[in-house]
Amino acid sequence: MKNQLFKYGLIGSSGKLGSEVNSVFNDNGGRQVYIYNRGGEFEVEKPELIIDCSAPEVLDKTVSLVDRFNVPLVIATTNLTDSQIGRLKTLSISVPVVQSYNFSVGVQVLLNLVRKADEILTNWDVEIEEVHHSQKKDRPSGTAKMIRSIFKEKNVNVSALRLGTVIGDHSVHFGGPGEILSIKHSAVSRRTFAQGILKAAHFVLQKKNGFYSFTDVIYSDTGFQI
Amino acid sequence: MKNQLFKYGLIGSSGKLGSEVNSVFNDNGGRQVYIYNRGGEFEVEKPELIIDCSAPEVLDKTVSLVDRFNVPLVIATTNLTDSQIGRLKTLSISVPVVQSYNFSVGVQVLLNLVRKADEILTNWDVEIEEVHHSQKKDRPSGTAKMIRSIFKEKNVNVSALRLGTVIGDHSVHFGGPGEILSIKHSAVSRRTFAQGILKAAHFVLQKKNGFYSFTDVIYSDTGFQI
Amino acid sequence: MKNQLFKYGLIGSSGKLGSEVNSVFNDNGGRQVYIYNRGGEFEVEKPELIIDCSAPEVLDKTVSLVDRFNVPLVIATTNLTDSQIGRLKTLSISVPVVQSYNFSVGVQVLLNLVRKADEILTNWDVEIEEVHHSQKKDRPSGTAKMIRSIFKEKNVNVSALRLGTVIGDHSVHFGGPGEILSIKHSAVSRRTFAQGILKAAHFVLQKKNGFYSFTDVIYSDTGFQI
Amino acid sequence: MKNQLFKYGLIGSSGKLGSEVNSVFNDNGGRQVYIYNRGGEFEVEKPELIIDCSAPEVLDKTVSLVDRFNVPLVIATTNLTDSQIGRLKTLSISVPVVQSYNFSVGVQVLLNLVRKADEILTNWDVEIEEVHHSQKKDRPSGTAKMIRSIFKEKNVNVSALRLGTVIGDHSVHFGGPGEILSIKHSAVSRRTFAQGILKAAHFVLQKKNGFYSFTDVIYSDTGFQI
Repeated sequence: MKNQLFKYGLIGSSGKLGSEVNSVFNDNGGRQVYIYNRGGEFEVEKPELIIDCSAPEVLDKTVSLVDRFNVPLVIATTNLTDSQIGRLKTLSISVPVVQSYNFSVGVQVLLNLVRKADEILTNWDVEIEEVHHSQKKDRPSGTAKMIRSIFKEKNVNVSALRLGTVIGDHSVHFGGPGEILSIKHSAVSRRTFAQGILKAAHFVLQKKNGFYSFTDVIYSDTGFQI
Repeated sequence: MKNQLFKYGLIGSSGKLGSEVNSVFNDNGGRQVYIYNRGGEFEVEKPELIIDCSAPEVLDKTVSLVDRFNVPLVIATTNLTDSQIGRLKTLSISVPVVQSYNFSVGVQVLLNLVRKADEILTNWDVEIEEVHHSQKKDRPSGTAKMIRSIFKEKNVNVSALRLGTVIGDHSVHFGGPGEILSIKHSAVSRRTFAQGILKAAHFVLQKKNGFYSFTDVIYSDTGFQI
Repeated sequence: MKNQLFKYGLIGSSGKLGSEVNSVFNDNGGRQVYIYNRGGEFEVEKPELIIDCSAPEVLDKTVSLVDRFNVPLVIATTNLTDSQIGRLKTLSISVPVVQSYNFSVGVQVLLNLVRKADEILTNWDVEIEEVHHSQKKDRPSGTAKMIRSIFKEKNVNVSALRLGTVIGDHSVHFGGPGEILSIKHSAVSRRTFAQGILKAAHFVLQKKNGFYSFTDVIYSDTGFQI
Repeated sequence: MKNQLFKYGLIGSSGKLGSEVNSVFNDNGGRQVYIYNRGGEFEVEKPELIIDCSAPEVLDKTVSLVDRFNVPLVIATTNLTDSQIGRLKTLSISVPVVQSYNFSVGVQVLLNLVRKADEILTNWDVEIEEVHHSQKKDRPSGTAKMIRSIFKEKNVNVSALRLGTVIGDHSVHFGGPGEILSIKHSAVSRRTFAQGILKAAHFVLQKKNGFYSFTDVIYSDTGFQI
């Protein structure tokens, strides 16, 4: 599968993540045949799957495109509402959908370790911290929300810092009597996310319908267990 | 001066900082002759100076005591209102007063370096972060407020984290295009603050009236310049 | 068990950790009936167990004492040689022995999470880092060695920093293409270790012979699984 | 000056930093007219200045080229020997030369703040730490050596960590009794260095002969004082 050519459509191709997806996909057998961005809509031919790296307000367009082409979707858009997530779940009855707020392997491992630590350090304080570039629109980040959802019963505070051109750092701190345990992920390059989206593309092209997380992608790739 | 015996009164003697002050002062020629804490008021004889490590609501008592004994004051209470600071300034017309939200040397250096960095990195983003134990009452910390006051024109965000028994960490992050510069101070031991208060006690005993910061104390001790 | 009185002997009672053990044990039903330190040997009566917080060169004395009293041993001495560990294992044929280079719960969790991360991030670079006070004699720390032993096949670098009065920080960094995952433990107070040693004391008093790690103690206490 | 066109020669054009220099210079009025890299030598016409982002073993070639073209040099090559630095100083008798191991503004500020902190915290412990990608050849980094040279009388330890694709982090930690002060710089993007080299190019094109540091460049640009 991995070295096979495939045709993809890209929504949000002019953004930071969209540009990286283009570059990584083109280097790995992908051919861009459909684009939707601020500049308009460009269709060369029917794509085999749609990648969405845009914004919540574009979701209507994304859903209508997936419906029209009847192809799989990988969606990396952050800051979706519960109702938009619901809409993607409905969409996944007819096509396979991979949805995640973070497509890096390291963040998957962080989520895994945080769950494990939380099981043991039940009475410790928890703080979540995220740092992103100053142009980031949502606050806290989608990844921080994914992390916070691990602590259902605790009302965990998220500190969001906005600094220069930082790609994305996430930390979880556990504080107990006389000690602190911290788990931190730093994205060094946005290319990492594009490579995760490529993994998700390969995964979704082999699936029938269904709603999948990036954890499912990594698990199928590596046997990695939550 | 330094090895001379002196008699001190301590307000807030049963708190975390108060206990350290007691221990450090007793090890360095201090004799406790007056106490005011939750348990009541204990007076053995007239103190040569008053140390206050209590809470803003105790300030009336502190001011009346300093008036009654007519002795210098070192006050480490955090979270004072502007009007309470004003009252201390009025008090300092008749006695010397040292007021600071942080009595560690390293925080003085941090303030110094942050001012310096701010002069150069004028267009960079700034974020302040502080971490303290989960029992801390004020939020953000007094020290974070001291740091924030450096950036008068910028509206600088302060993230406050509450974790276990952390004594006190303060960080200032500057974010520019493609780079981050951070200055961080961590208190490893509360004894550090008590030693700073001892320095302030030696300083204030040699002064006439006036309102002093801990920067003045350090400057007089080391020639250290802001 | 927990609130029952018990008599203990303490080797290395005048060191930093020894002093904390004394304080924590005395606050929790312990009565010190035997001491061995730089000042000499003081025996009030036969202890029910021996705690050793001293140095590798004292091990002969420790073993002869445990033999003589025929009681359990909890040993927190770091920097033991393989042959000294062997000697403790031999000793554990007749009495229960708990041996660890670190008695904090958080470091146990760190070891656990590092093992988990290593299973997944097989091809990532690994770096270990430890920071301790400038008086620390061994380098790298015993805890860093415990961490390094997780990566048997990789030749993992350990950076040891010596700074002021830092109690003990340990970090493990995993570096992959475009991302970094770090797990860090900071001891905020030496009391934490003394509380772990108290847990180990309660554990060892209930055991027959055998060689136990602090992981066994935590597991028996919390059901916490490696 | 800034928007004027200029012709440059680039030594080491195929490396990580060389590629960024190309991209930033081409976006800012630069025209590449000479290249020297692993693939060979390509000369279109005489450059107005030479940029060197290669390796110490290429220095002979660099010097002979600068001699031949008789144009200014900006050199970012790290790990030069004292004798190679001496050779560049000799070269600077006839042409202007800017030499630095780090062309980011933030590292200049870090150097500045570290000098300031060192003046005040004279008796504190110092540790330097640097993190770079696992392909980095020199160890410790040139920037770490620049930092270490601030502490002439202290024998300061440098910890070098090699992790994934990290661009470059440098930290200086000061440790005193009961407190730690840290100053840290992280490069988020290699583009930052290329932009600094562009600043140096503009600077050097306006100079006669002389040996300059990046500090001189920044000072002339911003009035920033060491």
